[in-house]
Amino acid sequence: MPEPRQLALVGMVNPPTQRYAAAWRHPDSSRDWLRASSYVGIARLLERGGFDLMFLPDALAVPEDALGDAATTLASGGKGAVTLDPITVLSAVAGATSSIGLGATVSTSFLPPYAIARTLASLDHLSEGRVAWNIVTSTTDAEARNMGLERIPSKAWRYDRADRVVTQVLQLMRSWDADALVQDAHGGVFAEPGLVSRTPAPREHAAAPGPLSLPRSPQGHPVLMQAGASQRGMEFAAKWAELVFVASDGLEGNRAVRAELRERARLAGRDPDELRVCAAIQPIAGSTNIDAERTKASLLARIDEESAVRSLARLMHADPEAMHLDESAGAFLARHRGATGSDGFEDMLAAVCARDALTVRELALRQSFDQLTPSPTGSGAEIAEELCEWHDAGAADGFVVTPAILPRSFEDFVEHVVPELRRRGRLPAEGAQSFASTLRGRLTEKLSPASPS
Amino acid sequence: MPEPRQLALVGMVNPPTQRYAAAWRHPDSSRDWLRASSYVGIARLLERGGFDLMFLPDALAVPEDALGDAATTLASGGKGAVTLDPITVLSAVAGATSSIGLGATVSTSFLPPYAIARTLASLDHLSEGRVAWNIVTSTTDAEARNMGLERIPSKAWRYDRADRVVTQVLQLMRSWDADALVQDAHGGVFAEPGLVSRTPAPREHAAAPGPLSLPRSPQGHPVLMQAGASQRGMEFAAKWAELVFVASDGLEGNRAVRAELRERARLAGRDPDELRVCAAIQPIAGSTNIDAERTKASLLARIDEESAVRSLARLMHADPEAMHLDESAGAFLARHRGATGSDGFEDMLAAVCARDALTVRELALRQSFDQLTPSPTGSGAEIAEELCEWHDAGAADGFVVTPAILPRSFEDFVEHVVPELRRRGRLPAEGAQSFASTLRGRLTEKLSPASPS
Repeated sequence: MPEPRQLALVGMVNPPTQRYAAAWRHPDSSRDWLRASSYVGIARLLERGGFDLMFLPDALAVPEDALGDAATTLASGGKGAVTLDPITVLSAVAGATSSIGLGATVSTSFLPPYAIARTLASLDHLSEGRVAWNIVTSTTDAEARNMGLERIPSKAWRYDRADRVVTQVLQLMRSWDADALVQDAHGGVFAEPGLVSRTPAPREHAAAPGPLSLPRSPQGHPVLMQAGASQRGMEFAAKWAELVFVASDGLEGNRAVRAELRERARLAGRDPDELRVCAAIQPIAGSTNIDAERTKASLLARIDEESAVRSLARLMHADPEAMHLDESAGAFLARHRGATGSDGFEDMLAAVCARDALTVRELALRQSFDQLTPSPTGSGAEIAEELCEWHDAGAADGFVVTPAILPRSFEDFVEHVVPELRRRGRLPAEGAQSFASTLRGRLTEKLSPASPS
Repeated sequence: MPEPRQLALVGMVNPPTQRYAAAWRHPDSSRDWLRASSYVGIARLLERGGFDLMFLPDALAVPEDALGDAATTLASGGKGAVTLDPITVLSAVAGATSSIGLGATVSTSFLPPYAIARTLASLDHLSEGRVAWNIVTSTTDAEARNMGLERIPSKAWRYDRADRVVTQVLQLMRSWDADALVQDAHGGVFAEPGLVSRTPAPREHAAAPGPLSLPRSPQGHPVLMQAGASQRGMEFAAKWAELVFVASDGLEGNRAVRAELRERARLAGRDPDELRVCAAIQPIAGSTNIDAERTKASLLARIDEESAVRSLARLMHADPEAMHLDESAGAFLARHRGATGSDGFEDMLAAVCARDALTVRELALRQSFDQLTPSPTGSGAEIAEELCEWHDAGAADGFVVTPAILPRSFEDFVEHVVPELRRRGRLPAEGAQSFASTLRGRLTEKLSPASPS
């Protein structure tokens, strides 16, 4: 019997304002979230725990409320109140680790492709082939204004630009053939100019002729990540993504999205296995079920209704004073459709609210707890069983673990869940040697793992 | 008697194509210049050697010749054939070191100020206050085209924009008051919104309203570095710079530039001591004078006339076939005035050529050896004496050490010259404790060093 495929495992890191809204107020959260040493520590924990990738989301502005004010986000410590440049954090991690993948969110809507290409190529070289690029198009007017535009362009404009920018970035990253760097000291030839080329269409909008001032990087180009769940987002993912991050309402929703993404990839002429679908989860693991439930209770206890309602109001650009807490959440969401700039996310919220017949109050509380991400709670064995069920049902090729509090949620996951996943053959054995030297190689190995020797 | 002021010491790092044109062909040069570990090693060497700062220059294109072709730079391994993104390299170094300053070159001509501010603030946080920003405006059409413009804007446009961009970046980096981050878990206040402000003039060109999504960084803003030697460059330096990097023709030239910069700073209402003038040197140190001369001979032996002439032709956008090698270099430079985009650099070349009555051939050979940077050669004591002479003559507050070959030239400098500078009280004693916690603090301490206890 062949070994089961193994799970891709991604750790999402963005302290102090995680998905769990009270993260910064929880006594078990570290307050050390600005120094490199803190991220290096998390990265080493994830490396030990068999994670493939440390992933940092990003935003280019402090989120604003319906009145265009950032004050409520700042005061409440809402998501996005603080965001370090992911490139700096992951480069710092690259300098002090040896195997963890480095997933950087970089928007395609504002920066010249040459700048994006050179930064990603540099980090891929420095880290010896560990970079992933989470491609986003940005969604808010606040971000657009900070980056020099008056408002955020339409989704169609943003995705068209994203297609062009990704094309250009990949062309620039391939401007040196793999063997262009000669370094022939006797012959006096540093690089073979015939093997270095400019980009093919240097005159179109936002085009850079190149060549890039860097040899081909170990991976050629970063592992491409994407999370867009709208129709246009899935079209983009089917064309480009190697790892898709799905925030669904549960196993069934994830299975449907994964099936659609694989079918779209097939139609685009790709091997669907190239496109790994990773489900976002916020696991709450303990040594026993009781231990985990106690942790969950301590997290829930810190979410008060008033902050949760204000946070939902901010997210949906609603007036908190005018909200009816016992109203159907579906009707509320429909009235504020489009506020987040992310259709896929709003579709997911609407689906959960309909399925569970949530009120506005209930939606607010769940939004502040886990943003409606599945939160498997229990012992390591219980959570591992649940993740294997998703895996076996074709709902996920892996998981994006979003920790409620840092670093404790990762510590609990690595201590309790990871050994159980290893025991079930879903992660490489502890200390197992990978034959691959790059992140992409390691992810590919998981599709046909070697039998343990 | 008070202790003498101490020297600022900056290590310039850009392998494999240093100022010394044959760097990549020299057998003592490391070929490991793409991995983070290599830069971490250099940074630790500089830390041990009492350097304040590791500094990376930058360019956004492979330099082109008169015909707009990058092939000759690539083939010969000319300066700029390879350039890693300085932010990624210095962030990697930040993750694995504790005290060396991190000097990043970032151009003001292409990126949104918000992006620059957030990156520099992030690195200042991650490194606990060690960032310096080398402000450049970029000079070539090749760079402009890669960054989405048709050609490089005029110097006036670039410096006007630089003034606005630096203003904005500093405003954004100060958008959180020093005590805005409260993290009051009981009161539920993460940050005090009244202490976080938007930038004052959000409607002007290239403006970002902010606020930055980061608390005030340890230094508030990076130590500002600059190297522009034109009149407009010196005006800019007098307004902003805390550390100026001067490539002059020698002690007298440097003394004149330093006097002018100090006078301009005084007229701008600043304490001239805030503006440290650091002279670029390419020291060649050995255990004895004979040892150093042997090293110099091994460097010179690898510069052949033909490559040197082609390299000068590329620099000055001249046709190498039409160059008369016995012609006066001054006349040649005058005919190609403006080719480099840097007036100050061309002024310096012209001054050296006039003073030393160089031919084109001689200029080419010196350009390939050290770009006409002073190259003090000798034992540690001899070089230290020469640097002290510059210091005492008011020609420099410190030095930018550009290594001929890496890491060996730094190793030689740290082994032979640094102990002699320490003995003369021009660098802190080995293992001396600094009272300052930031790069700016450490540079300031050097102006009034404590007596050794």
